[in-house]
Amino acid sequence: MTNPLSPTLQLACDLIAQPSVTPEDANCQEMMIARLEAIGFKAERLRFGDVDNFWAVRGSDGPILAYAGHTDVVPTGPQEQWDNPPFEPKIENDILYGRGAADMKGSLAAMITACENFIAEHPNHNGRIAFLITSDEEGPAINGTVKVIEWLEARNEKITWCLVGEPSSTNKVGDIIKNGRRGSLGAQLTIKGKQGHVAYPHLAANPIHLVAPAIAQLSAEHWDNGNDHFPATSFQISNFNSGTGATNVIPGEAHIVFNFRFSTEVTEQQLRERSEAILNEHKLNYDLTWTLSGQPFLTAEGKLVEAAAGAIKAVTGYETELSTSGGTSDGRFIAPTGAQVVELGPLNATIHQVNEHVCASDLDKLSLIYQSMMERLFND
Amino acid sequence: MTNPLSPTLQLACDLIAQPSVTPEDANCQEMMIARLEAIGFKAERLRFGDVDNFWAVRGSDGPILAYAGHTDVVPTGPQEQWDNPPFEPKIENDILYGRGAADMKGSLAAMITACENFIAEHPNHNGRIAFLITSDEEGPAINGTVKVIEWLEARNEKITWCLVGEPSSTNKVGDIIKNGRRGSLGAQLTIKGKQGHVAYPHLAANPIHLVAPAIAQLSAEHWDNGNDHFPATSFQISNFNSGTGATNVIPGEAHIVFNFRFSTEVTEQQLRERSEAILNEHKLNYDLTWTLSGQPFLTAEGKLVEAAAGAIKAVTGYETELSTSGGTSDGRFIAPTGAQVVELGPLNATIHQVNEHVCASDLDKLSLIYQSMMERLFND
Repeated sequence: MTNPLSPTLQLACDLIAQPSVTPEDANCQEMMIARLEAIGFKAERLRFGDVDNFWAVRGSDGPILAYAGHTDVVPTGPQEQWDNPPFEPKIENDILYGRGAADMKGSLAAMITACENFIAEHPNHNGRIAFLITSDEEGPAINGTVKVIEWLEARNEKITWCLVGEPSSTNKVGDIIKNGRRGSLGAQLTIKGKQGHVAYPHLAANPIHLVAPAIAQLSAEHWDNGNDHFPATSFQISNFNSGTGATNVIPGEAHIVFNFRFSTEVTEQQLRERSEAILNEHKLNYDLTWTLSGQPFLTAEGKLVEAAAGAIKAVTGYETELSTSGGTSDGRFIAPTGAQVVELGPLNATIHQVNEHVCASDLDKLSLIYQSMMERLFND
Repeated sequence: MTNPLSPTLQLACDLIAQPSVTPEDANCQEMMIARLEAIGFKAERLRFGDVDNFWAVRGSDGPILAYAGHTDVVPTGPQEQWDNPPFEPKIENDILYGRGAADMKGSLAAMITACENFIAEHPNHNGRIAFLITSDEEGPAINGTVKVIEWLEARNEKITWCLVGEPSSTNKVGDIIKNGRRGSLGAQLTIKGKQGHVAYPHLAANPIHLVAPAIAQLSAEHWDNGNDHFPATSFQISNFNSGTGATNVIPGEAHIVFNFRFSTEVTEQQLRERSEAILNEHKLNYDLTWTLSGQPFLTAEGKLVEAAAGAIKAVTGYETELSTSGGTSDGRFIAPTGAQVVELGPLNATIHQVNEHVCASDLDKLSLIYQSMMERLFND
């Protein structure tokens, strides 16, 4: 490189170079804490189980804007499929390559430099700026944000506005911000038949045959219409496994995993009851275990949404769009405390894939957007 | 034991004590050959690939009655689930326990002692008695009976009557003989969807959802009514696997294995066409590979069936029943040469299971039945 990298890109590269495969933090948080302490943040390291987390805050009273994010990344997948090693960041033609470039080390870097620039101009800003960082967002998410929120609640500390750095953008940076998320309800279903030999089907009960009409009905079911803020509820089977491997054995059980992403037009309870009604209608013998990953949440309007939309307009010139689509994020743990929550980050096209990448100059824009949001929230 | 075992039971125990897990023969065939050579058989050892087989014949011309069988056994499964070690034969309360007791070392022993007794009485019998023995019936069945039949055909040797020692009986020995078998047609089906994240179902195509209505239709399809000799054709899915294991990923493909057991009322070609028509009706994108394991065959009547039924009646006092139900056997390779084929052996209730066993005195009866069949076939 003949030109030095911008501070945001340099920090993004430094973070990507740490192989912090979930739940490893690989020293990323200490790198962030060093930068934050240098500009007046007070950090508290919070290790729960095998997960590193920290909470850092600047300012002593007033509303809290918390940047929420994670230093862990998903596994690389087959490294030989990467054009460049996943933990050796590389910038070429304004594209930054590396595991975590989009999800979400680029955002973490932009948060830090946004704060550095904002605080340089407003050393005595109103309110408080905070960081809530975990290394267990991509994993089971048990010893991460959930535990930090419990710890904050125990101290009676409430986040006012939460900016989650998840990659929310679709075609250009800031074109979409997520102001809520659908609920996520998972299930493990075991259909019980009776094992036997394919030559003696009258002595067996094939669970694949038995469940097929119910699967067809569940897949075709119209669960709701969604509403102004949420797309329609969707049902997807992620795994269906049955069979011993032998070609002449009728299996005794079929194991099915499915998931609802649901709007506020139905409740978890209704989805459970309607699913079970369909299974019962087909007279199936089954075991069913439900797991609620998160209730739907929504920040329909308010100062945070306005600040985000205004900042995006000021930096990029275009209007952003509010959306609740996409996967879950740690926002689901923060919203129930009463915080306004938005997710705003770079493009998500390549997350969790090989050759994950992000537009390099988008990260500089993101830093400016984050900085502009602070201007709007704290200096009105 | 205070009483010595009958020759049939002693030989059955000696064979069971050899751990001849498919395709191992573990010296069983040499034990059989020694007994057969002692009564005037000429044996030819036929090793194809890693499989031991032999053909032994007594007599120089006239119709051939061939005893067909296998020395290999299926794996034991978890040995700790056996009440007695699977390769340590044990007789208790007239029950002989051990892997292969029913499938089919008991039959092999009964064939040998039947010949010993018949030849002692009829050293100059009409026709020829033969043994066609393989150690690859329970495995891929590529280097076993198929190859021996090719070798016989090359020598222009035709089996007239074939007695396969497979355990055909259901409630008492000889209550059922198999005078044919359904065809067996297998298929491997891959349904192609498009992988994606469960949160973005509009960007994916879930192969489990796509195929469910077709599976329901295939499972409900009425393929034929069977006929006097064959039960109705049946369709069974033995394996259905789809999913990455992750709960948030819509899989890209579903892998399905299914099998037809079919009567002479439909052809292999019709089953293929009708299946594909159903898949096409549901507009599925798929790969489908068919494997024909065997065409249906039938020995509706003739001297062999009469001899078997007459011998069973003479030894046991009851009438036998002809049936074509059940799994495939090596009879499928012998019947196409024009041979009459019946399967007659002990009860099949415990085959391929832990604690495989057979009624000990049934094996003595079986030896008498086999001997009586030779009287009927050769001394009319």
